[in-house]
Amino acid sequence: MTPPSTAPSNTDHVEVAVVGAGLSGLVAARRLASTGRDVVVFEARDRVGGRISNVEVDGITLEAGAQFVGPGQDRVARLAEELGVDTYPAYDRGDPVLEVGGRTAHMRGPLPPLGPLAATEVVLAARWLVRTAQRLPGGRPWDGPDARLLDGETFATWIDRHLHGRVPRGVFRAGCRVVFSAEPEQVSLLHVLFFVRFADGVVPLVAGEGGAHERRFVGGSGRLPQRLADGLEGHIRLGEPVRRLEQTADRVVLTTGHGTCSADAVIVAVPPALAARLDVTPALPSARQQLLQRLPMGQAVKVQATYPTPFWRADGRSGQLLSDIGPCSAVFDNTPPGSGPGVLMGFVTGRPALRFLTLDPAHRRAAALGSFARAAGPAARRPRDYVEHDWTGDPWTRGGYFGVPGPGMWSQVGHVLRTPVGRIHWAGTETAERWFGYLDGAVEAGERAADEVVQRLTIERARPGSDLAHPAAGVPT
Amino acid sequence: MTPPSTAPSNTDHVEVAVVGAGLSGLVAARRLASTGRDVVVFEARDRVGGRISNVEVDGITLEAGAQFVGPGQDRVARLAEELGVDTYPAYDRGDPVLEVGGRTAHMRGPLPPLGPLAATEVVLAARWLVRTAQRLPGGRPWDGPDARLLDGETFATWIDRHLHGRVPRGVFRAGCRVVFSAEPEQVSLLHVLFFVRFADGVVPLVAGEGGAHERRFVGGSGRLPQRLADGLEGHIRLGEPVRRLEQTADRVVLTTGHGTCSADAVIVAVPPALAARLDVTPALPSARQQLLQRLPMGQAVKVQATYPTPFWRADGRSGQLLSDIGPCSAVFDNTPPGSGPGVLMGFVTGRPALRFLTLDPAHRRAAALGSFARAAGPAARRPRDYVEHDWTGDPWTRGGYFGVPGPGMWSQVGHVLRTPVGRIHWAGTETAERWFGYLDGAVEAGERAADEVVQRLTIERARPGSDLAHPAAGVPT
Repeated sequence: MTPPSTAPSNTDHVEVAVVGAGLSGLVAARRLASTGRDVVVFEARDRVGGRISNVEVDGITLEAGAQFVGPGQDRVARLAEELGVDTYPAYDRGDPVLEVGGRTAHMRGPLPPLGPLAATEVVLAARWLVRTAQRLPGGRPWDGPDARLLDGETFATWIDRHLHGRVPRGVFRAGCRVVFSAEPEQVSLLHVLFFVRFADGVVPLVAGEGGAHERRFVGGSGRLPQRLADGLEGHIRLGEPVRRLEQTADRVVLTTGHGTCSADAVIVAVPPALAARLDVTPALPSARQQLLQRLPMGQAVKVQATYPTPFWRADGRSGQLLSDIGPCSAVFDNTPPGSGPGVLMGFVTGRPALRFLTLDPAHRRAAALGSFARAAGPAARRPRDYVEHDWTGDPWTRGGYFGVPGPGMWSQVGHVLRTPVGRIHWAGTETAERWFGYLDGAVEAGERAADEVVQRLTIERARPGSDLAHPAAGVPT
Repeated sequence: MTPPSTAPSNTDHVEVAVVGAGLSGLVAARRLASTGRDVVVFEARDRVGGRISNVEVDGITLEAGAQFVGPGQDRVARLAEELGVDTYPAYDRGDPVLEVGGRTAHMRGPLPPLGPLAATEVVLAARWLVRTAQRLPGGRPWDGPDARLLDGETFATWIDRHLHGRVPRGVFRAGCRVVFSAEPEQVSLLHVLFFVRFADGVVPLVAGEGGAHERRFVGGSGRLPQRLADGLEGHIRLGEPVRRLEQTADRVVLTTGHGTCSADAVIVAVPPALAARLDVTPALPSARQQLLQRLPMGQAVKVQATYPTPFWRADGRSGQLLSDIGPCSAVFDNTPPGSGPGVLMGFVTGRPALRFLTLDPAHRRAAALGSFARAAGPAARRPRDYVEHDWTGDPWTRGGYFGVPGPGMWSQVGHVLRTPVGRIHWAGTETAERWFGYLDGAVEAGERAADEVVQRLTIERARPGSDLAHPAAGVPT
């Protein structure tokens, strides 16, 4: 668990430079290093992990960012196994509180207590999403026959068309904030369907058991990047943001906060909104420019509080909340296993996040604990400790959880998402075919980008002196 | 017409630094200088004007970017008068060709030749836009009672709901590309209504006589920034991009490509997608971050060709085209007055622009001239000269014509559009209350930002030693 040491400053040329030591960049670097490639990872922050970060609070380890893993997320599960990081089921018992459409109710069983009409609306709407999503080609939402039509509509418009009651609409609006960390107005229907497609349903996107929130990592998700970094000692340069990429026929020169370095290939493994800030010469192709400009980050603050015990469990409460009021769109019982303190965690996302961030710290705390109290009972207003992680104010993330394409992005420029630009390859969870935005997507993207680079280098090495463009490359002219 | 000289390099502190020597930045600098303020404008390019640029082609002056002025655009008209730049009516006679919904027809009179049903659809839909727009508060589309609802829908969805025939839909889809340089999928209905509100109608947005394309500037629009720069000699630093703004309680330190400079106040007068690339410390407020991430540039290439004469006029053709096929969404007779060559000009925008840019130069030329031929006759395929200006590939613009908010931006963070962040003020045509994206909006925004800064400096000078925040400021804490 020692922080990775800084690589020697005399590295003038490497085979592969990776921009960003988040999970995706580290996975790519590990894969490249395992094939004997000479690789260096440049990281702006003074830590690895990107949107994954363990924090010590009230004597226990919590996670400031991504933390869940669920069924179907096989790549991150395999990685965790390889790294010796176990998982455990997140606490998921009792009845979640539903606070939507001006009503508050306790869920019992899989269906929300909406009355038969509203429940039918929700079920039929979800079924429409599942059936429509099944027609999409996996990993390439822009390739379906109706892609442009589905991409031309916001999720807000879809909600208004498919749902009529205030409560059912509230369920989907709140769900959108929880899953996408953005407002339904800001998300294209095609993007929602992309998620339903890879999650193989609507429920898995919001569910604990059987869903994306099913399990957690023993010792915190931060152990994944930390262990990857331990295996890459000497190959990671912390506190060294990459500012500029200059590409020639046979190499890329990186300018960082500390100097320059050249590489045969580069993997950019930062969110699109950050990749958009790199100075790249020659200028990136117009479609790539558009793609990077049109994947703005969502809005997310993660709030957590600790209590002597998870007292709500004794009251038969789940500690879970789904809300379209906010500030927390969702609250979870985030207590680690063992006899330590009880923990509640909330996602403050979308519109409520920006409102929340205009409050002073005392009011933010009171507002968040209000959500917790509605999930777990009034005692939740008196925590032992309370912490916030504002990803929107972090200059090396600039939003959270991830990039969210608005309407008309996927169908116009989605096809260049994973296309290298000359010697520049693209990783990061926002380039995944499945589990876009999730830990699993970060792993998939890192592995894929590493494989592209290995292929490129293998071909080039086999033909020394040749200036061979990568088969899939959109080489700037 | 001499290029402005570079300011002395020993300028360590100025009262006001302006980022960007486009029309908006220059107007702001001129206004500040006229009140005796010490001002320096930093410009990344080696020329002033930003998205305005005269170019010499075939012995005459053409414009690579913005060129039109119309009724209601009083600020730029007054500026032109002050600078001694006259205007003349753009050529607007004959019947435009309409190439939409799979049909080609010649317009005669104000109504497209769609048949009575289609014409009625178009008129009723336009009337809906006008009536709905009238309910919006001027300059603040996010403040209307239905703002969130109107902002939650794409213009594409609106077109599908309000228009049923292929031809009427094609008219609005092509019109969207011409006005917004983006696909209807990418534009929120609220943003369209914002334009209809300040243009006082739908027709003025697309019309020559009586509309936004009514008049042009004698000698080219490039004379406006050039004359402004002549009056600011010694105050403009070309080829010096601003990279970083560090704000303290009493000043802002700018880091440029050449060094540093401190200022009492800064006016950022570059498009939002470029402002998003500045390193600003302390970090910008989250709402501002979101705003800058959610105003991506449209997609625009301007193509022009010259001919011995405007031969099409003799054939009774207007040289005008509105098309949903492309590559040109619109073609205009762009011939300057006098006996020089005839000129055709086309806007290649939206989806066709990105497709166009994947072609090699010969195919691009042939495709553009194909649009010209359909507007002006087959002889248009044989020009004397042909030029393209690709604003999407220009690293100091990164798209064109201007920023285009997707759904859910205005209603969520629009209210911070013009709010200073401490000592950083915001100009650029995308911050205008009226004529967002047009020359007039650039002038309005520059004047407004300059006035804010004058007010700030006046208040601060009146209370020496005080660290007085601007009344409207969202000072980072």
